[in-house]
Amino acid sequence: MEGLTKIEDLGKPRVVIVGGGFGGLQLAKTLADAPVQVVLIDKQNYHGFWPLLYQVGTAGLNPDSIVSPFRKILNDQENFYFRLAEVERIDAAAQVVETSIGLIRYDYLVLATGTTSNFFGDELMAKNAITLKNVPDAIELRNTLLSHFEQALQMGDQEQLNSMLDFVIVGGGPTGVEMAGALAELRAHVFPRDYRELDLKQMDIYVVQSGPVLLKGMSAEVSQKALEYLQDLGVEVLLDTRVKSYDGYTVTLNNGQQLISRTLIWAAGVTGAPIKGLAPEAILKSNRYQVNESSRVVGYDNVFAIGDIAQMATAQYPDGHPQVAQPAIQQGEHLGENIKRALKGLPMLPFEYYDKGTMATVGRHRALADIQLFGRQYHLSGWIGWLAWSFVHVLALVSFRNRFAVFITWAWNYFTQDKGMRYIIGKVKAPLQEKEVEAKALI
Amino acid sequence: MEGLTKIEDLGKPRVVIVGGGFGGLQLAKTLADAPVQVVLIDKQNYHGFWPLLYQVGTAGLNPDSIVSPFRKILNDQENFYFRLAEVERIDAAAQVVETSIGLIRYDYLVLATGTTSNFFGDELMAKNAITLKNVPDAIELRNTLLSHFEQALQMGDQEQLNSMLDFVIVGGGPTGVEMAGALAELRAHVFPRDYRELDLKQMDIYVVQSGPVLLKGMSAEVSQKALEYLQDLGVEVLLDTRVKSYDGYTVTLNNGQQLISRTLIWAAGVTGAPIKGLAPEAILKSNRYQVNESSRVVGYDNVFAIGDIAQMATAQYPDGHPQVAQPAIQQGEHLGENIKRALKGLPMLPFEYYDKGTMATVGRHRALADIQLFGRQYHLSGWIGWLAWSFVHVLALVSFRNRFAVFITWAWNYFTQDKGMRYIIGKVKAPLQEKEVEAKALI
Repeated sequence: MEGLTKIEDLGKPRVVIVGGGFGGLQLAKTLADAPVQVVLIDKQNYHGFWPLLYQVGTAGLNPDSIVSPFRKILNDQENFYFRLAEVERIDAAAQVVETSIGLIRYDYLVLATGTTSNFFGDELMAKNAITLKNVPDAIELRNTLLSHFEQALQMGDQEQLNSMLDFVIVGGGPTGVEMAGALAELRAHVFPRDYRELDLKQMDIYVVQSGPVLLKGMSAEVSQKALEYLQDLGVEVLLDTRVKSYDGYTVTLNNGQQLISRTLIWAAGVTGAPIKGLAPEAILKSNRYQVNESSRVVGYDNVFAIGDIAQMATAQYPDGHPQVAQPAIQQGEHLGENIKRALKGLPMLPFEYYDKGTMATVGRHRALADIQLFGRQYHLSGWIGWLAWSFVHVLALVSFRNRFAVFITWAWNYFTQDKGMRYIIGKVKAPLQEKEVEAKALI
Repeated sequence: MEGLTKIEDLGKPRVVIVGGGFGGLQLAKTLADAPVQVVLIDKQNYHGFWPLLYQVGTAGLNPDSIVSPFRKILNDQENFYFRLAEVERIDAAAQVVETSIGLIRYDYLVLATGTTSNFFGDELMAKNAITLKNVPDAIELRNTLLSHFEQALQMGDQEQLNSMLDFVIVGGGPTGVEMAGALAELRAHVFPRDYRELDLKQMDIYVVQSGPVLLKGMSAEVSQKALEYLQDLGVEVLLDTRVKSYDGYTVTLNNGQQLISRTLIWAAGVTGAPIKGLAPEAILKSNRYQVNESSRVVGYDNVFAIGDIAQMATAQYPDGHPQVAQPAIQQGEHLGENIKRALKGLPMLPFEYYDKGTMATVGRHRALADIQLFGRQYHLSGWIGWLAWSFVHVLALVSFRNRFAVFITWAWNYFTQDKGMRYIIGKVKAPLQEKEVEAKALI
C-alpha cells in the first residue's frame, strides 16, 4: 500500500495525533473549534480508562465499562477524522507518517503513544509475566486466575496447589497496591462462596517492591497507611526486595528466597517506545522524546510529544512529569491552545503542570489520597479517601455510558460483596499442560 | 491424568450433567432439593443466553450481559459441584465419563451438549463463514464487521469496497432474520454518524434462504410479515436459493448469481456432536441421541439426553422437538422430577411438551410472535409483538444482573438509536492481507 492514504483534504492545516490515550484524546477535543483537520491514528478503535484496568483483571468490572470507541466519543466533531492503523516511521523532511494503511501527510504531528512494560531485557520474565497495559492483558489475567482456581480443584500435590493459588505482584506503585487489594477481596468474599472445596487460607498474595516504601512519590503518611491496609488484608509485602528471575513457576528473589506461583503480575517499570525516523538526539535515555516547554520535540518545528512518552524537564520535575493521566490531559489541552495560537501567528506559551494530587485504593473503605487544594496538601484515607477515590474515578470516565456502567457495577459489588464478571472467555496465559502436571507431581 | 478426578464423594447417588445450556442448567436447579450430588461438567465456566447472541455480534449488547458464571448462579445450592472440563468418552459399563481432568464416576448421566454448526461437509465454507454459536463467535463477528468498515475507508476499488460493506446471511430462521434486522439498524442509525466518509447506500445485506418462506415453522402470516419487515428495512431476501460455495470473498449461489462479501454469516443448519462411547444404535442420522418418552437414551438404563442433542419421537413431533430453548428447559425440569421419582422407587413419567409459541424480532417496533394461550393461537406483530418479545427475553435471562444490564442497555439503545459496544477487542476473522488487496486491485 504505497502512496497517500485516502483521507479527505479539507484545505486546512492537518494535525495528526498518534495515540488516543488521555493526552491525544484531550488534544483532539481541544481542537474542535480550531480551523484545522484533526486526524487521530490509533492501533485500537477505542479510548481506555486504564486506571481501572486492574478491576477488569480481577472480575470487578466489564471491559466494556472502561472503554469508549473514538468514533462514538467524537462523531459530532466535524473536523475529526479517525484512522485505525499502526505508525511505522516518521519522515519529518517530507512531513508524512508511514502507517500500515499508507502515508499520512501532516502539518503538525503530535506523538502521544504512551509507554510499554519495561522488563529491563529479561526475556524469560517478558514471556512469563502478565502485564496490565490494555484490555486483552486484563482479560487474560482474569481468564488465567479463574482457570487456575478451576484447575486447583484437581490438584493433590501441595506445591502444585500453591502454584495455582498464589499470586506474586511485582511493583508497589498504585497498580501493584490496587491489584493486591482486589485479589485480597476475591479471597475474602468471592472465592469462599465459589470454591467451597478449596482451603482459601492457602491462597497467598505477595507484593514485591524494590524500594523501601509503597506508593513511592506519595506522602510518607500515605505510604505507611498503604502498607498497613495491605497487611490488614493479609497481603505479604516484601519491601527492598527484587525479583531476580521467573520461569513461569518459580519466582527467585534477590535475597535467595523462592516463591511458587503460576501468576506473576508485572506492575513495575515502563519505558517509551519511540517511533522510528526522528533524530537520535530527540530521544532520551528513558526512551522518551525530549520536548521543550511547549511540548515541541527538540530539533523539530512541527513535531510535538505529550503524555508519558514526552519528557519535559522543569525546575520541579528535572526528569519530566510523572507518567500518569493528569500531566497528559493537561499537556493535551495546553498544546491544543498553543496550536490555535500558532495558527493566529502568536507565540506558543510554556506549559505549567497543576498537580491535583494522587490517589490509590486498596479496596472497600480503604483508599489513600494526597490532594492539593488552594496551595495546601491534604491526606485522606479510610472511608473518606475511598469515597473521594470512587467519586473522582467515576467522574473522570470519558462517557456518560461508562460512568453509569461503572457506578452501577460498583454499587452492586458493594452491596453484594461480589465481583460478578467471573467468566473465562478467550485467551489463558500458559494453560496447564498434562505432561507438565505429571512431571511436577513426580517430584 | 489417569484415575478418578478429585470430587468429594457424598455417599449419595451422583447425577453427572454434561453441558450447562438451557436443559442442563434447569436440571441442576430442579435437583437442588433431591438427595443426590449434582456434578455439572462444561467446557465453559458460564451459562449463555444464546437467543440474544446476535446482539452481541452487532454491537448492541455486551457479551457480559448475556452470560452468567455457573458458580455464581448455583453457589448457594449445597449439592452442586462444577467442573470445567471436556468430556472425551463415555464408558457406560464402568459408569464413568473420561474427561480432560480425569475419570468422573456417575450413577445417572445426562447428556445436554447441544448442537454445532452443520456445513454439510463443505470445508471451504466451514473455514470462511462466521458462525454464531458462542461468545467468542459473536465477538469475532463484531470485530470483523467493524474492522471492515475501518478498512473500507482506504478502498479505492469499487469491488473491494463492496467486499467490505456487504453482508450475506445464510439461513432465514430466527437467527438469520434477527441478524439481518440488526445490521439494517446499524446501517440506518449508527454507521452514518460513525462513517461520514462512506456512502452507506453501498452497504448491502442479503438473506439467503433455501426454502420458500422465512421463519419456517411459524405461521404463514408471521412468515409473510417477516419478509415485509426485512424488505422495508432494505434487506435483500433471496428465497428458494442456496449458497453453493464461498471462498471468503465470492459467494456463488445455486442459480449462478455471485455476490461479493468478506462476511458470510452462517445461520443455517445445526447437527449434534455425540460423545464417543455409546452404542451406534443410540445415535440417529441427525447425530442426535434417540431417547424414549422419559429422555432415557435407548439401550441404557441410567444414561439420559435432553435438549437439542436429544431426539424424542412423539405423535406431534415424529422427528423430535424443535431445537430451541423451551423443549430443553422443560425436559430438564421434567427429568429432574423423574430422577426424584426414581430415587423413591416410582416409575418415570413420560414427557409432554407444552409449546408456548415462537418469537423473532426484526428490530425496533418490529417483532413477530405466534403465541399459544389457553389452547388458542395468537399472532402478534409490530409494536405489540416487539414489546412482548422484549419483555419475554428480559425475563428469560438467568440472573437479575443480566436482566438489569440488558434492560438498561436496550432502553439506552432505544432512546439514542445507538449501539454503543463498537470496539474491536480480540480476534478478527481473516484479517486483510496487504498482498491480497494489491492483487485484487489489479483485476
